[in-house]
Amino acid sequence: MIVILKKNPDEKQLKNLMGWLESMNISVHPTEGKTHTILGLVGDTSAVDIDLLRALDIVADVKRVQEPYKNANRKFHEDDTVIPVGQTQLGGGVFSVIAGPCSIESEEQICAVAQAVKASGATMLRGGAFKPRTSPYAFQGLRGHGLELLLKAKRMTGLPVVTEIMDLSQLELFDEVDVIQVGARNMQNFELLKELGHTGKPILIKRGLANTLQELLMSAEYVMAGGNHQVILCERGIRTFETATRNTLDLSAVPMLKKLTHLPVIVDPSHATGISWMVKPLAMAATACGADGLMIEVHNDPKSALCDGAQSLTPEAFDDVMQSVNAILPHAFKAPKEV
Amino acid sequence: MIVILKKNPDEKQLKNLMGWLESMNISVHPTEGKTHTILGLVGDTSAVDIDLLRALDIVADVKRVQEPYKNANRKFHEDDTVIPVGQTQLGGGVFSVIAGPCSIESEEQICAVAQAVKASGATMLRGGAFKPRTSPYAFQGLRGHGLELLLKAKRMTGLPVVTEIMDLSQLELFDEVDVIQVGARNMQNFELLKELGHTGKPILIKRGLANTLQELLMSAEYVMAGGNHQVILCERGIRTFETATRNTLDLSAVPMLKKLTHLPVIVDPSHATGISWMVKPLAMAATACGADGLMIEVHNDPKSALCDGAQSLTPEAFDDVMQSVNAILPHAFKAPKEV
Amino acid sequence: MIVILKKNPDEKQLKNLMGWLESMNISVHPTEGKTHTILGLVGDTSAVDIDLLRALDIVADVKRVQEPYKNANRKFHEDDTVIPVGQTQLGGGVFSVIAGPCSIESEEQICAVAQAVKASGATMLRGGAFKPRTSPYAFQGLRGHGLELLLKAKRMTGLPVVTEIMDLSQLELFDEVDVIQVGARNMQNFELLKELGHTGKPILIKRGLANTLQELLMSAEYVMAGGNHQVILCERGIRTFETATRNTLDLSAVPMLKKLTHLPVIVDPSHATGISWMVKPLAMAATACGADGLMIEVHNDPKSALCDGAQSLTPEAFDDVMQSVNAILPHAFKAPKEV
Amino acid sequence: MIVILKKNPDEKQLKNLMGWLESMNISVHPTEGKTHTILGLVGDTSAVDIDLLRALDIVADVKRVQEPYKNANRKFHEDDTVIPVGQTQLGGGVFSVIAGPCSIESEEQICAVAQAVKASGATMLRGGAFKPRTSPYAFQGLRGHGLELLLKAKRMTGLPVVTEIMDLSQLELFDEVDVIQVGARNMQNFELLKELGHTGKPILIKRGLANTLQELLMSAEYVMAGGNHQVILCERGIRTFETATRNTLDLSAVPMLKKLTHLPVIVDPSHATGISWMVKPLAMAATACGADGLMIEVHNDPKSALCDGAQSLTPEAFDDVMQSVNAILPHAFKAPKEV
Repeated sequence: MIVILKKNPDEKQLKNLMGWLESMNISVHPTEGKTHTILGLVGDTSAVDIDLLRALDIVADVKRVQEPYKNANRKFHEDDTVIPVGQTQLGGGVFSVIAGPCSIESEEQICAVAQAVKASGATMLRGGAFKPRTSPYAFQGLRGHGLELLLKAKRMTGLPVVTEIMDLSQLELFDEVDVIQVGARNMQNFELLKELGHTGKPILIKRGLANTLQELLMSAEYVMAGGNHQVILCERGIRTFETATRNTLDLSAVPMLKKLTHLPVIVDPSHATGISWMVKPLAMAATACGADGLMIEVHNDPKSALCDGAQSLTPEAFDDVMQSVNAILPHAFKAPKEV
Repeated sequence: MIVILKKNPDEKQLKNLMGWLESMNISVHPTEGKTHTILGLVGDTSAVDIDLLRALDIVADVKRVQEPYKNANRKFHEDDTVIPVGQTQLGGGVFSVIAGPCSIESEEQICAVAQAVKASGATMLRGGAFKPRTSPYAFQGLRGHGLELLLKAKRMTGLPVVTEIMDLSQLELFDEVDVIQVGARNMQNFELLKELGHTGKPILIKRGLANTLQELLMSAEYVMAGGNHQVILCERGIRTFETATRNTLDLSAVPMLKKLTHLPVIVDPSHATGISWMVKPLAMAATACGADGLMIEVHNDPKSALCDGAQSLTPEAFDDVMQSVNAILPHAFKAPKEV
Repeated sequence: MIVILKKNPDEKQLKNLMGWLESMNISVHPTEGKTHTILGLVGDTSAVDIDLLRALDIVADVKRVQEPYKNANRKFHEDDTVIPVGQTQLGGGVFSVIAGPCSIESEEQICAVAQAVKASGATMLRGGAFKPRTSPYAFQGLRGHGLELLLKAKRMTGLPVVTEIMDLSQLELFDEVDVIQVGARNMQNFELLKELGHTGKPILIKRGLANTLQELLMSAEYVMAGGNHQVILCERGIRTFETATRNTLDLSAVPMLKKLTHLPVIVDPSHATGISWMVKPLAMAATACGADGLMIEVHNDPKSALCDGAQSLTPEAFDDVMQSVNAILPHAFKAPKEV
Repeated sequence: MIVILKKNPDEKQLKNLMGWLESMNISVHPTEGKTHTILGLVGDTSAVDIDLLRALDIVADVKRVQEPYKNANRKFHEDDTVIPVGQTQLGGGVFSVIAGPCSIESEEQICAVAQAVKASGATMLRGGAFKPRTSPYAFQGLRGHGLELLLKAKRMTGLPVVTEIMDLSQLELFDEVDVIQVGARNMQNFELLKELGHTGKPILIKRGLANTLQELLMSAEYVMAGGNHQVILCERGIRTFETATRNTLDLSAVPMLKKLTHLPVIVDPSHATGISWMVKPLAMAATACGADGLMIEVHNDPKSALCDGAQSLTPEAFDDVMQSVNAILPHAFKAPKEV
């Protein structure tokens, strides 16, 4: 970490700063420049509060040389993390496709979708029981009952299941869930992340709408610091000024995350765009640039056809996406070993 | 609500849509245009899922005519909400200044700051016991013990206290807290908001870093839908591309929120900029454009002076801000009754 | 176009509005709702100033049903535009790779790069003579002399050339240039666009850093309204809060633009990320989701190796990108005819 | 400037880098850290291309210690710049109010507005003759004829005039214009800025929709590097995700710019929000936080009343804004001398 001091720093404040840094076992190496003095900090600086440092009267700026995350950092864990889930795995060369409906609506629905997506090659089943909705007046999910239906579909198809937790009080219901999802809006719900660090379950963290890649990695670090190293990262679009799509899918995040961390990185093209016909080209693009998998909404409601055309695909359209993705897959980007 | 249909909509899907809308007691008034058919929906459309509607195959676009929030909507509650807190109140013509340290560190610290800010005219005391920190390795607050210290300062000074809750499991500790704060990162923690709707306490909701004003109002609606109408909104900066300040304070939010809702609206210039010397001009600007109050970080650590210059002001600098704000206050913007 | 009136609109203002619309040969179809009146406007509404309309006292909101662009609109021109350039073409099933250095530095440099990229399969040569630089103290390009060197490389290799114009006064120098580029910072330099609409040359427009897809299409419309229908659109990253990459490449733009317009759409992964090793995965992703081509920076300076590792690739690295892109190409997304 | 090298940098590339820096008369002071080597660059680094440096293979990161602008930098010009304009001035303690219509429509209109705004206390007249419009089908301004009408209003009222230039070819028409405006979309039209640096006229530069404060200062630097030091900066809202207002007015920019530069800083609340009733509270806020002036749209069309309610105020509403602003003015923020 480098601290750039302002001109003529107050002596007493500088002494205080030096003392504080040394109390954290950080050695300080000053260099006098023409106009500024620079302090090189050597030691474990991951616990140093960079905002606090930057805010000191005598400090002009602070620059990290090392990333603030350790467990998630590829520099310290060169090999890809592989997370076994049921008969399959996340990461380590297996391309995971997690498919299913946005909301679990009925046993008939979730089981039919599960069978369909399995037939098309999905490796895991998703389905929402607890639903984060912007409006208190919108459908909030079947909750506990939804989880039961999801587990029925798991038993019927053998597909491992992924579903979202919204609050710690729900955790006791997640015993048979294979992968616990933390939604974009809870990406910085630090109390939740901490507690999930004490479970033995894989945790899939979705990137928040306005969160940087470093913040996403710090959220993974929260889980990992608790001892749970089974974390999967999911890019699902960020909030920008563009209104043609619901969010802006940031595919640069895929190769960049793969370089910064050893954790599996997947992409959710359904939520990013909110437009069903865009799922296919963006799933193909995500595959091409090296994602470890996809998360795709698939819906099946033959009675009303109300949701045709939503961000959810029909099972037929999903099958078409799978074929296109599978054609790209053998040619997809693989980062060189030495990054 | 207006639904614009695509050209030549599929008959069966249109019939399904009509049936679904009517099942929600919404009457549908179609108008044939030259190229498009428009459906006018009349009835209580606040429960209609606009994203779902927009995603239908036969729908080109959907436009709300009425806002999706009811309890928070000034159209249905013309008079300003006034929230009594101890001997003071939020809203209703009283200008509230909520001041105190970012983190509660010791009894000595919180009591000294409390006395100082009271002397300068603060109406309420703030202090963080549970701290949301980006890094798991950063100080997480004194937690339960911090709350105890805050309540000591309350008893000593008589100032009502505001402090942040991070998880529902902490709620039992908030009995003597006067106003419960929901932080920016939890603005869409819907389970938390729902539960807070069943407390009898005023809830101060900070705008999320990437949340629109409508989303902020919908989060207020979550609390209010549970029966708790004592909600305060706080603008504290949004995330943009600009890097000169930590966030971009959106002061347009103040007059706009005051027009859209009857709830009190306050501004936090400390977190928005992250720079102590900017607190004064932005506090003055927030006052000028009609905010109902301010939330300002004040710190006091004479021993180390470590935090001098942080986003926190010293008690002396806070006193100077108060004088400048008080000079602006009599001339501040007041919205005309009928806007 | 739909105009939603406020409750109880002022009679006189409404009459004025009606008269103004009818003076533009737009017929007005009112529908009385329970709380609002809606006006359906029928006729050529592309000249109606939507901001002006929205700003009227009596208007609650305005909604376009038709896009404000005509010439660029796929609805009115179903077939892909094909732009012949020298022996090659842009669009129409040919995948164009436009490669070359950021700045033209010397005859030796531009000719060496031109030969190298041609050997690897590039279809066109790029090189900057007039350089938009944030700082007045940075190198501003070789300007007229640079253009001469670029044309030498064109004659030597037979590759058509693309280069940026920064001001109308430079236009007379562009006679032998094959494609004129309008840079991101000039995307809304409307005087420049208008004049380029009177040239017979293909115009490549880069998306501005903070411009929506609709604004990009309106800039194309400026050129096309002048009679020049040879316009190519280029996605090159937008400005967001993320700092891990220089800009955020918006690949959703590719399938969305291909749906909205018949013009060729290419992607520049070099400028979007500013990081050379990211060019390959993002070039592959852009190809996979259906781009008509790529624009890639390639540099060659064996003497100093100063720029190794910049956003520019070496010729060897570019050759590797081409092979990976060519492997993806046969499997790339093709939009269904009727989207 | 500080260059942080990657671990074990390639010897030859490091030597090249050292040679290149020394060829620019920059002395290099290396410091060996535990994991990284840091180079301190001493000398005039304003011409060093930071992006190029950052992109080198052996460089991990680069950090400026000094700002890249010199002429605009308050560090080198402590006193506020004062720009005399006719009988008035910009900066130096005079609060400037530049008012007038968006577009000049007729002699009657511009003269009536000019007289009205003068009577209410405006110090300068604005009016658009060349209009940047997103659509080629929208009204493009009266152009040369519009300028003539503006100058008539100037002669009638004695108010100095401000109007926008869109292309260098228009410059010859601006002889009697007092202040030349560069619009937000042309903020990085570097050829235009360079040429305006050779005029003797004050140049008012509006901040681009997605431009940082540093980029705004670099655009000022372009004009100043040509010898013209009469530059005024104007904050007018930036593009964010929020849709409740047209843009997000960034009032933090006012105190921050005043600290970074000695140039006058004004605020345009009309364009920032696009909503007429918001002009008043935001004009008051801009005044409170220390702006040197305001730019406000005022329209006058008694015949049609078509524009009532637009972002333009009526002369009556403008008069009301002036009174409110004048009440705030004596209490406005003044930065301490030593910042």
